[in-house]
Amino acid sequence: MPSASFNSLVSRLSPPPVPSVFAWARAYDGSRGPLIDLSQAVPGYPPHPDLLAWLGEAASSRGFAGYGPIEGETDLRKVYAEDAAEIYGAAIEAQNIHITSGCNQAFMAVAMAIAGPGDKVALTEPFYFNQETTLAMMDIERVLVPLDPTKGFVPDLDAVRAALAKGIKAIALVSPNNPTGAIYPASLLREIFEACRQAGVWLILDETYRDFLPEGDKPHELLSIPGWEDNLILLYSFSKSFCIPGHRLGAVTAGPKAVAEIAKVMDNLQICAPRAPQAAVARAIPALRDWRNGNRKEILKRADTLKSVMAKLPDWKMDSLGAYFAFIRHPFEGKPSALVAEKLAREAGVVCIPGAYFGEAQEGYLRFAFANADSGTIEALTDRLSGFRLD
Amino acid sequence: MPSASFNSLVSRLSPPPVPSVFAWARAYDGSRGPLIDLSQAVPGYPPHPDLLAWLGEAASSRGFAGYGPIEGETDLRKVYAEDAAEIYGAAIEAQNIHITSGCNQAFMAVAMAIAGPGDKVALTEPFYFNQETTLAMMDIERVLVPLDPTKGFVPDLDAVRAALAKGIKAIALVSPNNPTGAIYPASLLREIFEACRQAGVWLILDETYRDFLPEGDKPHELLSIPGWEDNLILLYSFSKSFCIPGHRLGAVTAGPKAVAEIAKVMDNLQICAPRAPQAAVARAIPALRDWRNGNRKEILKRADTLKSVMAKLPDWKMDSLGAYFAFIRHPFEGKPSALVAEKLAREAGVVCIPGAYFGEAQEGYLRFAFANADSGTIEALTDRLSGFRLD
Ligand SMILES: Cc1ncc(COP(=O)(O)O)c(C=O)c1O
Ligand SMILES: Cc1ncc(COP(=O)(O)O)c(C=O)c1O
Repeated sequence: MPSASFNSLVSRLSPPPVPSVFAWARAYDGSRGPLIDLSQAVPGYPPHPDLLAWLGEAASSRGFAGYGPIEGETDLRKVYAEDAAEIYGAAIEAQNIHITSGCNQAFMAVAMAIAGPGDKVALTEPFYFNQETTLAMMDIERVLVPLDPTKGFVPDLDAVRAALAKGIKAIALVSPNNPTGAIYPASLLREIFEACRQAGVWLILDETYRDFLPEGDKPHELLSIPGWEDNLILLYSFSKSFCIPGHRLGAVTAGPKAVAEIAKVMDNLQICAPRAPQAAVARAIPALRDWRNGNRKEILKRADTLKSVMAKLPDWKMDSLGAYFAFIRHPFEGKPSALVAEKLAREAGVVCIPGAYFGEAQEGYLRFAFANADSGTIEALTDRLSGFRLD
Repeated sequence: MPSASFNSLVSRLSPPPVPSVFAWARAYDGSRGPLIDLSQAVPGYPPHPDLLAWLGEAASSRGFAGYGPIEGETDLRKVYAEDAAEIYGAAIEAQNIHITSGCNQAFMAVAMAIAGPGDKVALTEPFYFNQETTLAMMDIERVLVPLDPTKGFVPDLDAVRAALAKGIKAIALVSPNNPTGAIYPASLLREIFEACRQAGVWLILDETYRDFLPEGDKPHELLSIPGWEDNLILLYSFSKSFCIPGHRLGAVTAGPKAVAEIAKVMDNLQICAPRAPQAAVARAIPALRDWRNGNRKEILKRADTLKSVMAKLPDWKMDSLGAYFAFIRHPFEGKPSALVAEKLAREAGVVCIPGAYFGEAQEGYLRFAFANADSGTIEALTDRLSGFRLD
């Protein structure tokens, strides 16, 4: 009997990266002190108690047990639009918002609304791995825009133009960046956006870490450009800013036409995002502004701590440090990053993501999600890393 | 400037069907009495109060705020496997279960794990519309197996064999069926499964309405066939049985290899299903067995009521009545089903889904999700339908 087969686009993908890293962590015996988990990005502090209460309230209500609108709860769309209008200083309305079950889903729904099998979409390299595998499993050809460490991993306009010349349907950027932490200057984003417009290409901008930019820094002015809707789609996650990844909530900001296309995908993909968290977050957005600002400051402080720690570790080079992540060149040139990360987890109890997970050319790197850990924990890295040998 | 374009596989799809039907309902002026909503399948009774309490408890806990395992919470996988083991009388374990954010998502993740662009997957016609549009947007070619109303809309083995001969990678069946309600006999499912095995084809069986089968009726014996894992994937939804569609929860039952492939898709698609509802449902599965059985009986009673109502309406032919739905031939032969359904909603306050949404050949039909309404409400249909004229 012939056996039934899987989709080779999926079967050829490696298993999901984060669980493999957790497995290394589980092998750590604790001898160097508590595990320091700098792998999957999750702020180490809990959600605000009010948000937990609102989540409980909404989840236990009959009102949110039924199916909801595909595009998201009207309240949340409105409140998130108001928040975005303030952050970007632009006229954003509820009709511009599509709520999703997290930002990975937002990327997938947007990618599918824009590109089909055989189409091309550009990513920077290093890339956020789920964006790369999402395109791969949908048979969308990725076009890579290499990022230069000596230029702070910020995209080069000519490299972007070269990608545009290849007939791509979209370019996906992540700012603040995962894995490097790099924050793309507003002026550069504007230049890239204008180049996209001229080429008739979508700019998809993943701003999952937007709320960790220094206070008062407007991420960009793209939403103030008349006609932005025809070429721009922004992605956001409530996972990090509100510390609720387990509730799965994200948002897309786009023109109404794009929202309508995304809704068609989302209806098939999951009908609507879970409703109770939407109701709770609609309350949290205005109410927890100060708390979010406090976290922003806390994470900037953690970045400072990491900077002083890394200054004491001359063999480890911090090529990039940003809003949530640091991209660190390990001292073992020529050795696979997975080998370094595995040994670091097993023996030093420091869990991070191997550079190679973000692109083949990144073997020299490790990604530290430093914002996961408080400053005291980050300080403990000095000792863990300085004593670390590969063999 | 050239304008950026959408994916034609998505842009050519119609807008999602359910919201368009709701729009007709909103135009009803109430003159015939309260709206009778037989459109989107949602049991009219609320979730059990204990489940609401557990949902609230889990949602407000810090423990479920973080990311969870891709495949689902260990507890829920275990408890659901135990429940399935009992229902099917087979050895099902936690490793056979992948939790999803609803059954639409389960279908999409499974379809993607199995079939890529250009591959063929068979559906019956009438089909469940989201299965059809899911395949269309992924550029998977659908092969239709027509169902014969005079044979109760149950698939014909020869028609299935004809589809298998076309080189399909999978056939998706829905039993109890949406839209017809038809319950496929266990013996037929076994024959279809054997034909799939011989052809090296996956059988995907959507059992969203399984818990509304008459008590004691085992849905089938497929999980007792040695090696079933190589050709069979079952889909389930917690939306209907537990009345919690707003919390978005579904499950896949499959072999560990298929679960691993589905996990790769799910990681990209949304990392994990929302965690708090998983924790709550893990408690509800054993605790609310009696409640679920009570609902099963209630819905069987509603079916009886509908049968007696339809007997009084000779112009309306109930070609099929089953576990949740009735597929009803309207008296206006040659008229588009959407026209009939729209007028029925606007003027008689009876909301149902036009047959054409389930396949071009279904213009003569309307789908009544009768299980949405209690018996008293169903009885009111006699008056609403008997007075109904198209012009
Ligand atoms: C750049 C980026 N986009 C999207 C996501 C996914 O976030 P969510 O939890 O909202 O799916 C992450 C999570 O790490 C991320 O780093
Ligand atoms: C046959 C079938 N499958 C899947 C679904 C989707 O259910 P869920 O709410 O779990 O996504 C439905 C909902 O109506 C359905 O009828």
